[in-house]
Amino acid sequence: MIRAGIIGASGYGGGELTRILSGHPDVELTYLSSETYKGRVIGAALPNMKGYLDIQCEGYNPSLAIERCDLLFMAQHNGWAMKQASQYLDAGLKLIDLSADFRLRAPKSYEQWYKLTHESPELIKQAVYGLPEIYADDIAGAQLIANPGCFVTSAILGLAPMLTEKLIDPTSIIIDSLSGVSGGGRSSFKLDYHFAEVNQSMKAYGVGGIHRHVPEIEQELSEIASCPITVSFTPHLIPVTRGILSTIYTNIIGGGWDTGELVNYYKEYYKSAPFVVVLDEGETPATKNVLGSNYCHIGVKVDPRTNRVIVISAIDNLIKGMAGQAVQNMNLMYGLDQTTGIDKPGAFPW
Amino acid sequence: MIRAGIIGASGYGGGELTRILSGHPDVELTYLSSETYKGRVIGAALPNMKGYLDIQCEGYNPSLAIERCDLLFMAQHNGWAMKQASQYLDAGLKLIDLSADFRLRAPKSYEQWYKLTHESPELIKQAVYGLPEIYADDIAGAQLIANPGCFVTSAILGLAPMLTEKLIDPTSIIIDSLSGVSGGGRSSFKLDYHFAEVNQSMKAYGVGGIHRHVPEIEQELSEIASCPITVSFTPHLIPVTRGILSTIYTNIIGGGWDTGELVNYYKEYYKSAPFVVVLDEGETPATKNVLGSNYCHIGVKVDPRTNRVIVISAIDNLIKGMAGQAVQNMNLMYGLDQTTGIDKPGAFPW
Amino acid sequence: MIRAGIIGASGYGGGELTRILSGHPDVELTYLSSETYKGRVIGAALPNMKGYLDIQCEGYNPSLAIERCDLLFMAQHNGWAMKQASQYLDAGLKLIDLSADFRLRAPKSYEQWYKLTHESPELIKQAVYGLPEIYADDIAGAQLIANPGCFVTSAILGLAPMLTEKLIDPTSIIIDSLSGVSGGGRSSFKLDYHFAEVNQSMKAYGVGGIHRHVPEIEQELSEIASCPITVSFTPHLIPVTRGILSTIYTNIIGGGWDTGELVNYYKEYYKSAPFVVVLDEGETPATKNVLGSNYCHIGVKVDPRTNRVIVISAIDNLIKGMAGQAVQNMNLMYGLDQTTGIDKPGAFPW
Amino acid sequence: MIRAGIIGASGYGGGELTRILSGHPDVELTYLSSETYKGRVIGAALPNMKGYLDIQCEGYNPSLAIERCDLLFMAQHNGWAMKQASQYLDAGLKLIDLSADFRLRAPKSYEQWYKLTHESPELIKQAVYGLPEIYADDIAGAQLIANPGCFVTSAILGLAPMLTEKLIDPTSIIIDSLSGVSGGGRSSFKLDYHFAEVNQSMKAYGVGGIHRHVPEIEQELSEIASCPITVSFTPHLIPVTRGILSTIYTNIIGGGWDTGELVNYYKEYYKSAPFVVVLDEGETPATKNVLGSNYCHIGVKVDPRTNRVIVISAIDNLIKGMAGQAVQNMNLMYGLDQTTGIDKPGAFPW
Repeated sequence: MIRAGIIGASGYGGGELTRILSGHPDVELTYLSSETYKGRVIGAALPNMKGYLDIQCEGYNPSLAIERCDLLFMAQHNGWAMKQASQYLDAGLKLIDLSADFRLRAPKSYEQWYKLTHESPELIKQAVYGLPEIYADDIAGAQLIANPGCFVTSAILGLAPMLTEKLIDPTSIIIDSLSGVSGGGRSSFKLDYHFAEVNQSMKAYGVGGIHRHVPEIEQELSEIASCPITVSFTPHLIPVTRGILSTIYTNIIGGGWDTGELVNYYKEYYKSAPFVVVLDEGETPATKNVLGSNYCHIGVKVDPRTNRVIVISAIDNLIKGMAGQAVQNMNLMYGLDQTTGIDKPGAFPW
Repeated sequence: MIRAGIIGASGYGGGELTRILSGHPDVELTYLSSETYKGRVIGAALPNMKGYLDIQCEGYNPSLAIERCDLLFMAQHNGWAMKQASQYLDAGLKLIDLSADFRLRAPKSYEQWYKLTHESPELIKQAVYGLPEIYADDIAGAQLIANPGCFVTSAILGLAPMLTEKLIDPTSIIIDSLSGVSGGGRSSFKLDYHFAEVNQSMKAYGVGGIHRHVPEIEQELSEIASCPITVSFTPHLIPVTRGILSTIYTNIIGGGWDTGELVNYYKEYYKSAPFVVVLDEGETPATKNVLGSNYCHIGVKVDPRTNRVIVISAIDNLIKGMAGQAVQNMNLMYGLDQTTGIDKPGAFPW
Repeated sequence: MIRAGIIGASGYGGGELTRILSGHPDVELTYLSSETYKGRVIGAALPNMKGYLDIQCEGYNPSLAIERCDLLFMAQHNGWAMKQASQYLDAGLKLIDLSADFRLRAPKSYEQWYKLTHESPELIKQAVYGLPEIYADDIAGAQLIANPGCFVTSAILGLAPMLTEKLIDPTSIIIDSLSGVSGGGRSSFKLDYHFAEVNQSMKAYGVGGIHRHVPEIEQELSEIASCPITVSFTPHLIPVTRGILSTIYTNIIGGGWDTGELVNYYKEYYKSAPFVVVLDEGETPATKNVLGSNYCHIGVKVDPRTNRVIVISAIDNLIKGMAGQAVQNMNLMYGLDQTTGIDKPGAFPW
Repeated sequence: MIRAGIIGASGYGGGELTRILSGHPDVELTYLSSETYKGRVIGAALPNMKGYLDIQCEGYNPSLAIERCDLLFMAQHNGWAMKQASQYLDAGLKLIDLSADFRLRAPKSYEQWYKLTHESPELIKQAVYGLPEIYADDIAGAQLIANPGCFVTSAILGLAPMLTEKLIDPTSIIIDSLSGVSGGGRSSFKLDYHFAEVNQSMKAYGVGGIHRHVPEIEQELSEIASCPITVSFTPHLIPVTRGILSTIYTNIIGGGWDTGELVNYYKEYYKSAPFVVVLDEGETPATKNVLGSNYCHIGVKVDPRTNRVIVISAIDNLIKGMAGQAVQNMNLMYGLDQTTGIDKPGAFPW
């Protein structure tokens, strides 16, 4: 049994980790930290867990964490993990960090986008970017995982097959993404997330390449394409609790592909990725169809009128975009089947 | 392994049955019938199942069902099961019917409320009302189960502890219920369920004791109370996909209870019911907390100003109010732990 | 022209006042105060007003308000108006207060429910309860109006016709109410109002007679019935932005009414109330139908099985439950037709 | 007074026309036709109108329409107006058609996209495309107006300023649009619009240039740019009742613009358009802010990293995208101020 702890168990990401790990056959939850709920049973923070899990939340205590855990999930705000990680790594624990602290390989880039001086630049080198569909082998050997951003996951999974084979013009990529409100986190209840402000509305934010996921998207796409890539990325806030839908536009080089061929190529590319479902020609992803699961649905369409490909990918931002992907990474780190504990479809309809 | 079939696998109830049973450790799904999707893979009807379950939907075929199945779930419109059930019972299959056909013990009552002549009145006597928290022993020995209505489940679980002990005035019961839209079913897409008509609105329907769940509620409450009970019941349509919240008002006989005592009594009453969570004094159920699970959350409050008790119960109408309860019944019928395959909490937040 | 000011123009109630008054033919908006947005144009706070109204928000300044205004709308938190009102009344201004400060006639009751010592008990006597359908004459002569609570408005309009004629058992009243999230106000963005916590959920709060609208409901119903009335009142939070639906249960004394007769009596009772629409027998109110307007829809149904009447009333909590009613009061205070500036139906569908 | 009739008064577009025109100071509603509700009062179809408008719906009857009306609004399915228009034009009535029948100038294009042979190609030439911000003069003199599509309105208003001045690469335009569910109409209640299928989901449709608004967008953009334009257009269905948000990506030719300059240019371009609000630099449109009004909010942003402009436009699809724009056209046709009867902001928040 893996003895696992969660720092920040009462947030939306930490809460889903708690739920998933409490049902994982190879995991024992040995430590749940939550400053807000310490001393109270986890059901006070996560009312879905009432009657199922009876663990108490505790305050943050590194020595306790080291004593009790083989693996820690860190679900804290940006800037936290870079200060805390080294003590755990030194003690031999494995870490999966859900923040942005170890995602950007250039400390300068982190400082530019997150307005924080990186305090553990040496750990960035050690960290493996935890996208299992691309980096499974590296993840298997890692001690420190940087769990990808939710938008980034949807963008990379949509584009990787074409970038790998250099099928598209690398200057032509536009990623238009829609997100549910839980992506903003549970502790940041600012007016922007008030039900009366969000409901019935649709709104872009971070327009013009200024959202913090831009450098992460570009870093990863550039890595896959082996050339520098700059993208347009516009996230939108949509009145749903969960889900990310990315509609991606890009120009095919040379042309000559039709939709059916591209669908087949995507299916081939993802044939050993258990959570990526490439839809048949004519089918279109909807976030409803992946909610509550670790699946990513991808649809592709070639538009011969404009010589563009439109790729659409749908995920549950809290699962494949966060907690589910973290557990998928854990499974790989421990040599388990990567679907262990996260192999079930979501309910329908939400 | 139980060889199970589902008649009507592409509806909302049948869909949840398909999902739950496909992950049940003691079940093999051997037959999925759907007239709308016959010849197509189940993922065409239930897009959440894509990549997970690869079974084809088939047309309705009784001899096939008998050959392939030990147990059939019938998720069809009212009036269907009463015509089809006997052939399966004769062939030795077990049946769990999700319609109203075998719920009302008086055929006349069925005819009055459903405007259909009952064609198998003799089977009504054989049928067991499938509410495991009340009738576990009978269910264990049953061949034919009438799976309860969703509103009815929430009402009975809320009232049973007080009725059993005759704590309340049986003429004083008012059940005010809120329901999500999936309760109306997937095939009945009338204007009433159009997103633009439901969203942002709240509306009662079937006001004044004319909803079809009234006779079922009264029958079951009368049985538990051992005296005839007439209730006021008002269902409301609320813009959520799932969930039922019943707020129940009733007068305590004699008085003398405070909230803490009543909470303790409810906890004692349900101590061996794995899916009923009685909330602590001061806590209030919310449907969000039970969505995606088979749990029922119950809160009770004594109001000394009016000498009334207010009981509030929350369930997921498609799970504890339908498919999950059906599987719980199946578990009891086969001597399994009643939580098998339905023991997980739902995700949070929806 | 009435020179009107709004204290708290950037909240949800103040915002609707701003919108309605900016289009009122007899009003000139001379003062908009907002601490949050002072020095900025009103469109920064109320983005619906962009391109339509170009007034600046200002800080709170009593002498400015006195100089510029004939009438002030006070849309502030409870406890504010009781400290500020007297200076304006002394200066001859008319006041319409949207808080609870002048609603409860007994200062002790105010202190008990709002945990504040009332600092102007003498003004309570002077204040008129601003429900135009009941107190039009008093409102016409008032200098200080206590604008009713939103739940209270829906409850009184539903019950007044029967209470006036003593048709019902005064101990039998149960008011089960559903409310949209805007009722909680714009400044109180606590976790309870976070989109991800509210969406897809249904939840009671203040269960068991502990909500602050209870004493106001009981005071007003007692006044109308000329006898002391105690009610059960349960508000619920529903994932809609606006709207209140109250489903009211009560026992008819003596019986003998059928639904058609009661509908006719309600129509007669409200024949000169331009904003109350009594629905025909068989029709049921939905909040969608009154959103964006000052209308109240009322449906009644006699249930002979239980000898109960069910009355359902629907309003827009920010209009008939708040800003629209305030303007209706203003119209009466100035001898205008009470529908002036608020005579339009809302759009459909929301 | 303009004697106006509406063919199809009970749909979502016809309903909003009914509401707006019933409050228009220069209009008398003399004829409301609805096959579904004929013989019943309009409040049966449009419950928001109860207590406000007492007109009966009538069956469709051309001679009656000619006798009673100066102007007809035709809110029917595609293919209807092309058969009915000529009799009215011959009789001297003015017509505003809300369908697609007279929007595409090439009958062949109509036939290709709508799969219908156009039966009045000669009327297409006579029809004026009713986008007041571009064609006000032509509209003033027109007898037959083709009221624009909702997506098209949002796209043209967003792009016109740059296309007029040839600031952008005409091959680079990508229009990514989000729409509420009312855009699908009230009579088409297919499973796709069932609340349980739409709620909590986000989904593209008509992907790859196959949506019927594509030829209309391209025709109008080409006209404005004086060169042939092909676009990528992807509509998405979002769980809101109303609203369209279009996020438009395009490449600036030559560069050299910054956001502030472009904002100023847009403000200048639209300085005499009373319903177009160009937001200040740093502001972003949200559909919530225009719901219930005829306003269009536009935000622009230059991204120097990619040399792209991102333009975002927000409208209420049933008002500026349909009924409000139709009334704006009527105002121009009759020499009224174009804001008459539609000059009010929407409520906030929805």
